[in-house]
Amino acid sequence: MEGFRILEVKQSIFENNDREADRLREDLKKDRTFLLNLMSSPGSGKTTTLRRTIAALKDELRIGVMEADIDSDVDAATIEKTGAKVIQIHTGGMCHLDAGMTRQGLEGLGTEDVDLAILENIGNLVCPAEFDTGAVKNAMILSVPEGDDKPLKYPLMFSICDVLLINKIDVLPYFDFDIEACKTYVRRLNPNMVIIPISSRTGEGMDEWFQWLREQTKSFIG
Amino acid sequence: MEGFRILEVKQSIFENNDREADRLREDLKKDRTFLLNLMSSPGSGKTTTLRRTIAALKDELRIGVMEADIDSDVDAATIEKTGAKVIQIHTGGMCHLDAGMTRQGLEGLGTEDVDLAILENIGNLVCPAEFDTGAVKNAMILSVPEGDDKPLKYPLMFSICDVLLINKIDVLPYFDFDIEACKTYVRRLNPNMVIIPISSRTGEGMDEWFQWLREQTKSFIG
Repeated sequence: MEGFRILEVKQSIFENNDREADRLREDLKKDRTFLLNLMSSPGSGKTTTLRRTIAALKDELRIGVMEADIDSDVDAATIEKTGAKVIQIHTGGMCHLDAGMTRQGLEGLGTEDVDLAILENIGNLVCPAEFDTGAVKNAMILSVPEGDDKPLKYPLMFSICDVLLINKIDVLPYFDFDIEACKTYVRRLNPNMVIIPISSRTGEGMDEWFQWLREQTKSFIG
Repeated sequence: MEGFRILEVKQSIFENNDREADRLREDLKKDRTFLLNLMSSPGSGKTTTLRRTIAALKDELRIGVMEADIDSDVDAATIEKTGAKVIQIHTGGMCHLDAGMTRQGLEGLGTEDVDLAILENIGNLVCPAEFDTGAVKNAMILSVPEGDDKPLKYPLMFSICDVLLINKIDVLPYFDFDIEACKTYVRRLNPNMVIIPISSRTGEGMDEWFQWLREQTKSFIG
C-alpha cells in the first residue's frame, strides 16, 4: 500500500487567478515556505531531476513535493522512496493547475514543516504557462531529444520561467541539438532566464542547479 | 518570403463539438478526403515523420498538410520543402483544435485536390485528446526518450488513438525504454491500437506505417 495521500483538486471558482496567486505568495512568505513550480513536456525528466535534487538538499532544507497528474500515482511513488514528504494531486483531466488548486495541494501537503515545496506540474508546455500557480519561482526543463527549436513553438512557457534546465545532455551526441542556438532563442524571449545544462541521469551540471535553488529558497524564507 | 498561407483560426461557437466532428467526417466522405489527426508531445518527431510520409506516398496520393501551432511557422516551412500543399494554422494560444477550427483549416487548405489531409496538432498529450477534430483516424507518436510509462500518465490520449508510432527507436540503446512494457500499458487502455515502432530519422519500421496509412486512405476515399 502506498504511504502518500492522493488529493483530488477542483478547479477554482476565483474570478481573478492572478490576485489569488499573489495572495498565495504572500501567505507562503509568512509561512516561510518557498514554492517552486516545475514544468516541462511529458518525459523531459522532471521526476528524475527532482529525485536528485531532494537527495542533494534534504540535509539542509525540509522538502515537500506535490506531484500533479491527471490520473496516475507513478511519480508520487517514485518520490516517496526519497524520504521526502509527498502528496499526489489529481486534476481530474485538467491540463494545468491554477493558484486555487495549488493552495489546495499545499494544504493537503501541510507546509508547517516544509522550507522548500516543489510542485511537479502536468507535463505540458502550453496550458500550465497560462496560469500563475502562486509559486515564488517557475522552473522548466527542456530535454535534448525534444529539439532546440521549442522556444520558437512554445514562447509563453519560455517567457514566464526564471530558470531553464536543458536536460539529457548525456545524449547530445545522438541528437541534433544546438545548445547555443537554443540559448539564443530563449534569450530573445527572456533575457533574464538562468540556463543550466544538466544530465539528471549522470548528475552532470546539477550542482549549479542545486546552488540556484538553495539560494532562492534561503533568500525567500529568510 | 514563405509561400504558404497562415490562417488564424478562432475557437468555435458550436455547443456540441462531437456533432460538429461527425458532420465534418460526413463532408470529408463526400469530398473523398481522408483526414488524419497526428498528435504527440512537443519534440516527438511529428514533422520529421510527416516529411518521410509525404516523400513515400506523394506519387500515389495527393497530400495536404495543416500545421497547427500556437505561434511559429517553423513546421510549415519544413513541410513546404517536400512539395506538399501546406497551410499554417495559428491557434492564438489555444492548446488544441476542435472540429470547427479544423473545418476552418481544411477550408483554408482547400481539399478539392487533396486525397489525404494531415493535421499536425499542437504538441500536447492532454488537451488535444479531449476534442474530436472530425478526423477519420487519430494517430499519435510517443518517442523513446519520453519513457515507456506515458500511457499510465496520459491515458485518454492513448485511448482515443487508432495507431501509435513509437518513434526514435534508433536511440533505444541510450534510454531505459521497454517496448513490451509500453505495449502492455497501451493494450490495457486500448486493445485495438495498432502499434508500430519506427525511427523517422533512419526510416526503420516506416514501411508498415506507410502501408497502414495508404490502406486507410484508399478504403475511405474509395
